[in-house]
Amino acid sequence: MTEKTTNQAIGIFDSGIGGLTVLKEIMNLLCGENIVYLGDTARVPYGTKSRRTVRKYAESNSNFLLSKNIKLLVVACNTASAYAIEMLKENLTIPVVGVVEPGARRALELTVKGKIGIIGTQATIKSSSYEKKLRQICSFPIDIYSKPCPLFVPLAEEGWENDETTFLVAEKYLAELKKSEIDVLILGCTHYPILKNTIARVMGEEIRLVDSAEETAKQTERILRTRGLLREGSKTRDISFYLTDDSETFTSIASRFLGRPMEKTEVVDIV
Amino acid sequence: MTEKTTNQAIGIFDSGIGGLTVLKEIMNLLCGENIVYLGDTARVPYGTKSRRTVRKYAESNSNFLLSKNIKLLVVACNTASAYAIEMLKENLTIPVVGVVEPGARRALELTVKGKIGIIGTQATIKSSSYEKKLRQICSFPIDIYSKPCPLFVPLAEEGWENDETTFLVAEKYLAELKKSEIDVLILGCTHYPILKNTIARVMGEEIRLVDSAEETAKQTERILRTRGLLREGSKTRDISFYLTDDSETFTSIASRFLGRPMEKTEVVDIV
Repeated sequence: MTEKTTNQAIGIFDSGIGGLTVLKEIMNLLCGENIVYLGDTARVPYGTKSRRTVRKYAESNSNFLLSKNIKLLVVACNTASAYAIEMLKENLTIPVVGVVEPGARRALELTVKGKIGIIGTQATIKSSSYEKKLRQICSFPIDIYSKPCPLFVPLAEEGWENDETTFLVAEKYLAELKKSEIDVLILGCTHYPILKNTIARVMGEEIRLVDSAEETAKQTERILRTRGLLREGSKTRDISFYLTDDSETFTSIASRFLGRPMEKTEVVDIV
Repeated sequence: MTEKTTNQAIGIFDSGIGGLTVLKEIMNLLCGENIVYLGDTARVPYGTKSRRTVRKYAESNSNFLLSKNIKLLVVACNTASAYAIEMLKENLTIPVVGVVEPGARRALELTVKGKIGIIGTQATIKSSSYEKKLRQICSFPIDIYSKPCPLFVPLAEEGWENDETTFLVAEKYLAELKKSEIDVLILGCTHYPILKNTIARVMGEEIRLVDSAEETAKQTERILRTRGLLREGSKTRDISFYLTDDSETFTSIASRFLGRPMEKTEVVDIV
């Protein structure tokens, strides 16, 4: 593989901010990689929208990133992964990584009782994408329990991750899952790692949480390594941020999600 | 004015569901009118988006409604009213009613102390549109206090209007406003009338709440009457619902917001 190819960036898109938890894990694990991040802030959120519309948005986001000559595409959004990953894999010649499959694989590694819970947006839960993926790759019978938690996204964006209100909302959403005797819970939305401590507090320490962001970074690393596309040994790298809508909120929340000050963002008109 | 003209529909658009509280008031007050409602469910919400983007969306929504030959346009969304009402008034030949001015006028009628509070989405509060309108139409000095309450929209959509969680969130958001000694509070988001009881419980009964939906219906009635465009005396009328994205959530939430079973909706591709 030529140096030119390894120097090509990893492209990541999300409906907005949530994908930054995935970006953060990829930045930590693959510290030599150039990255182009696109947040579709003009059309955020995807979690309440239909398959048809989410696919259309995923397609225009991918086209933008392909124009940046990326070597691999990460769909850092559970809803877009749920609705559009197969379409993107079929249509693109570069590798495509979604967040659903890595999370599902990790959950199957961790479960002892074969009882797995999934929380996510309305669209992700309705798509049954985790359930389908779990059943597809699993050789033993499993019980799956899922619950949409729409308020978790705005709570994470408000910065109320350690607030008592968030604990109460989490108790309300997770009550049924607690009764179901699951031993693994998939955080099926890229915002949810922000609320991990609260979710863990409600679920109790015996329940293992699967953070799709971490698993997606590991999967990205595996694919790049297998294909000889890893960029290693370089001391500098470029991280570029593009948004489809100017958003002060993005910048302030992004610093918190990324755990570091936010670099400059550029607004692109693709909508 | 010909019967043909009075028979033309009132066009109403909102970013999605919130505008149904305005539709409900218009349906109640103007019970002979034909109405076309457009919910921009493919791009909802507007409250976190920029002026440029909200204007673009408002323009395409208006163009769709104009193609339905409407006689008056209601912008039943505070964010779109805040960012796009002047542009729409300049560009259209039919009357345009937003939700900001009627709410502001009512607040000035009600206040005794000249201390007015405003709650709304981040975009509405950031636009200062209520503040500007209040100062523009008010002949005496007033103090204005505002607060964005981003969680109120998802709480209303979750149907948690009578839940203790909503009360706690409201207490948190409204604490500063309570200290400011306002005597009137403008519900500057079309979702907020759903949470009226909780907001009233937190603020106390001495604070008058201004429901922009009610005031917008009254303003619409005044304009139609002045221009001889009222449709009266008819026993039947058509209410049509268009969405930019197929949304089961819309249908289920809409029945609750409207307080009656939801009619058929049609998806249009304008995005």
